[in-house]
Amino acid sequence: MELINKYIEENKDRFLEELFELIRIPSISSIEAHKPDMYKAAECWKKFILAAGADKAEIFETEGNPVTYGEKIIDPNAPTVLVYGHMDVMPVDPIDLWDTDPFEPVIKDGKIWARGADDDKGQAFMHAKAFEYMVKNNLLKCNVKFMIEGEEEVGSPSLPKFCEDHKEMLKADIILVSDTSMIAPDVPSITTGLRGLAYWQVDVTGPNKDLHSGIFGGAVANPCNVLCDMVGKMIDENGKITIPGFYDDVIEISDEERKKMAEAPFSLEEYKKSLDIKEVFGEKGFSTNERTGIRPSFDVCGMWGGYTGEGAKTVLPSEAHAKISSRLVPNQDHEKIAILFKEYFESIAPEYVKVSVTPLHGGPAYGCPIDLPAYIAAEKAYVDSYGKAPIPARSGGSIPIISTFEKVLGIKSILMGFGLGSDAIHSPNENYPLEQFFNGIRTIPQFYKHFAEMNK
Amino acid sequence: MELINKYIEENKDRFLEELFELIRIPSISSIEAHKPDMYKAAECWKKFILAAGADKAEIFETEGNPVTYGEKIIDPNAPTVLVYGHMDVMPVDPIDLWDTDPFEPVIKDGKIWARGADDDKGQAFMHAKAFEYMVKNNLLKCNVKFMIEGEEEVGSPSLPKFCEDHKEMLKADIILVSDTSMIAPDVPSITTGLRGLAYWQVDVTGPNKDLHSGIFGGAVANPCNVLCDMVGKMIDENGKITIPGFYDDVIEISDEERKKMAEAPFSLEEYKKSLDIKEVFGEKGFSTNERTGIRPSFDVCGMWGGYTGEGAKTVLPSEAHAKISSRLVPNQDHEKIAILFKEYFESIAPEYVKVSVTPLHGGPAYGCPIDLPAYIAAEKAYVDSYGKAPIPARSGGSIPIISTFEKVLGIKSILMGFGLGSDAIHSPNENYPLEQFFNGIRTIPQFYKHFAEMNK
Repeated sequence: MELINKYIEENKDRFLEELFELIRIPSISSIEAHKPDMYKAAECWKKFILAAGADKAEIFETEGNPVTYGEKIIDPNAPTVLVYGHMDVMPVDPIDLWDTDPFEPVIKDGKIWARGADDDKGQAFMHAKAFEYMVKNNLLKCNVKFMIEGEEEVGSPSLPKFCEDHKEMLKADIILVSDTSMIAPDVPSITTGLRGLAYWQVDVTGPNKDLHSGIFGGAVANPCNVLCDMVGKMIDENGKITIPGFYDDVIEISDEERKKMAEAPFSLEEYKKSLDIKEVFGEKGFSTNERTGIRPSFDVCGMWGGYTGEGAKTVLPSEAHAKISSRLVPNQDHEKIAILFKEYFESIAPEYVKVSVTPLHGGPAYGCPIDLPAYIAAEKAYVDSYGKAPIPARSGGSIPIISTFEKVLGIKSILMGFGLGSDAIHSPNENYPLEQFFNGIRTIPQFYKHFAEMNK
Repeated sequence: MELINKYIEENKDRFLEELFELIRIPSISSIEAHKPDMYKAAECWKKFILAAGADKAEIFETEGNPVTYGEKIIDPNAPTVLVYGHMDVMPVDPIDLWDTDPFEPVIKDGKIWARGADDDKGQAFMHAKAFEYMVKNNLLKCNVKFMIEGEEEVGSPSLPKFCEDHKEMLKADIILVSDTSMIAPDVPSITTGLRGLAYWQVDVTGPNKDLHSGIFGGAVANPCNVLCDMVGKMIDENGKITIPGFYDDVIEISDEERKKMAEAPFSLEEYKKSLDIKEVFGEKGFSTNERTGIRPSFDVCGMWGGYTGEGAKTVLPSEAHAKISSRLVPNQDHEKIAILFKEYFESIAPEYVKVSVTPLHGGPAYGCPIDLPAYIAAEKAYVDSYGKAPIPARSGGSIPIISTFEKVLGIKSILMGFGLGSDAIHSPNENYPLEQFFNGIRTIPQFYKHFAEMNK
């Protein structure tokens, strides 16, 4: 590890400068106005992949945002690693809760503070720098391919077709991804499960215009009240989602596997303290980690209706809206769940309002067996850099495209994430500790080394 | 009526020009930035009252917005009429639903289209012009006082003290108000009841920051889901408000009075058609008019939380909010109701969130007996101008200050409203038919005539 430590020490300022160049591009994929920024980010990635030592790099158009692809083929018989990452980021609302400009990264308290610092600009960039290190020091024993997309935060709608269209180009033995977290800075872990996602917008319409709440209040159903009532019925007092058939395909985890998961260090008191909540709430009969790792969820991600400005305006609003997401687990089918939700939600709609449910995006869950050779190579890499084996952990988050890779390309993914739970990804004040960033760059080349040795 | 018809015909363009000058001032009382506009509106009223023939007019400072007061005393022994109106208006959100600029009045299809066209600039201004007519034609047989305030739409917080401080100046035999509606252009009515109001903001806080809905979803209570669940519990399947003790002080109306109310023409089919709703919803056992006239309501006027922008952002929000109003009926005490609501709402809050309830404003309901001399004078005035007696009707709206007048000044109010249900007050595209405006100006002088005769 000495060589890599020295390389990082000599180049770290440049590494950060380059990363910051990428972060400064506000590549928010869910907001149409940021489309030009997606192209800027794609160009930036192309530049960095080439500079790191790729034979070639190219920007591919899709129906949505562009994909940057680059590769270095050292030997047709060597194993091939396909690095996947994403250049797009989440919106920054509520902007007033940020301490610094989300697109002007600063280093403070040993962390990078910015939107995308972790998710996924910071984490994906570790692979570019690890690759650079291996190339410059003649250590590369695998072929490397980079595929950096621009629609991960909106469910990767264009990437399945991109994979279909470029199966040959993307051929690889394993996909390597850093877009997840590890348990703690001194407790390395590899994510062996990801939740899927179904996301809907729900619109409730009452009267055809906003009404005077005095003249009509009490006689005309209020769509805000109705929406609340309907959403309130979606989770019962035991934390169970009430959609009929919702749990039908959920794989029940064995007691043995639940026991192994429970070995990960976890303090409920610390957890509650860090969130400033008195009590947790979730499905009865499951621990907090199980609730996010192996059980589905049902969350209102946003809702609005009526007067939301200053002061007290009385009005009986014409409309109410909610954005709702469900995190899914193996083997729930997100398309089936979308139908079940739509049917149920519309079935409980009272006749005095109109209710419409629009699916916005979705993706299936993913599972990785811990006896996969690439998993074992990754395990060894962590032992090299951290001095201990990583815990196989199931994450509550979703990377919908990971299941698609398996389905379309027939390739499993290894989720070597170096994020931390405190990185506030998707939230104001997203951050990424420098230690995690550099440990990622230290660990990744070891994976290549062990993976090449296993494939000799 | 010939003389007044001629006077209106000769002066109507000027009447409208003057009214439009008033409407163009965006005097939104609930938005602090419009404070200077309140002073402009007060000056404008002072000018018009003086020009119409008042002996004097003055702008009084209060702790909030100013009050314009003016008077013409013709004889200390003549009866005195105190005209009350308000110069402030509601906010204009959602602004994108307006067909024209809310503060640039236009005349189209025989109506004035603008914020305040009816409520209450248009209606209050009828009194200035009826007064002008009586003065210029030597017809005035009553003393007249004008009190035009600037905080009606936020619950008139400063006016009770203003009344306390100026009891002598405001002495009168009756208060005359045009700030309500009549049943239809050809069905005149006088409002004999007004609902009171209690208005709260409710804030639900979960985790101390917005969370990743994948990493935390299912294990941490979502304040949007919780707010929905709590609000959903406030009205039961029979349309009854569930707050314990909420109905305790409600005066149950006699069968006889309910029968009389039911004589007002009303078509439920037309009502539903005009609102584009399939069905109405309200308290079981009461008609639509009873639900708004003699029964209280519980409406979410606005709610918001989480991501409300374009596209699909997954987030487990830290906070959720709602603005809620209850319309009250005689003899519910708005302060008691505020306490009952707060206690109940906080009592059903689960331990995994923090809930706070903040009362924003409130006021009591009002009732006017139909054997009051001033009511009879008003009745006769409508017979003169419309050829038929007005129906005594109970309105669902609130003018909290009307009860305060009775309490502080000991004076009853006659609510001669010329608005129509289709005027969209408080909504986008507020309008006021010219016919109603001019019929108001024709009717008001007849009230003065009959009221003076009854007091001889």
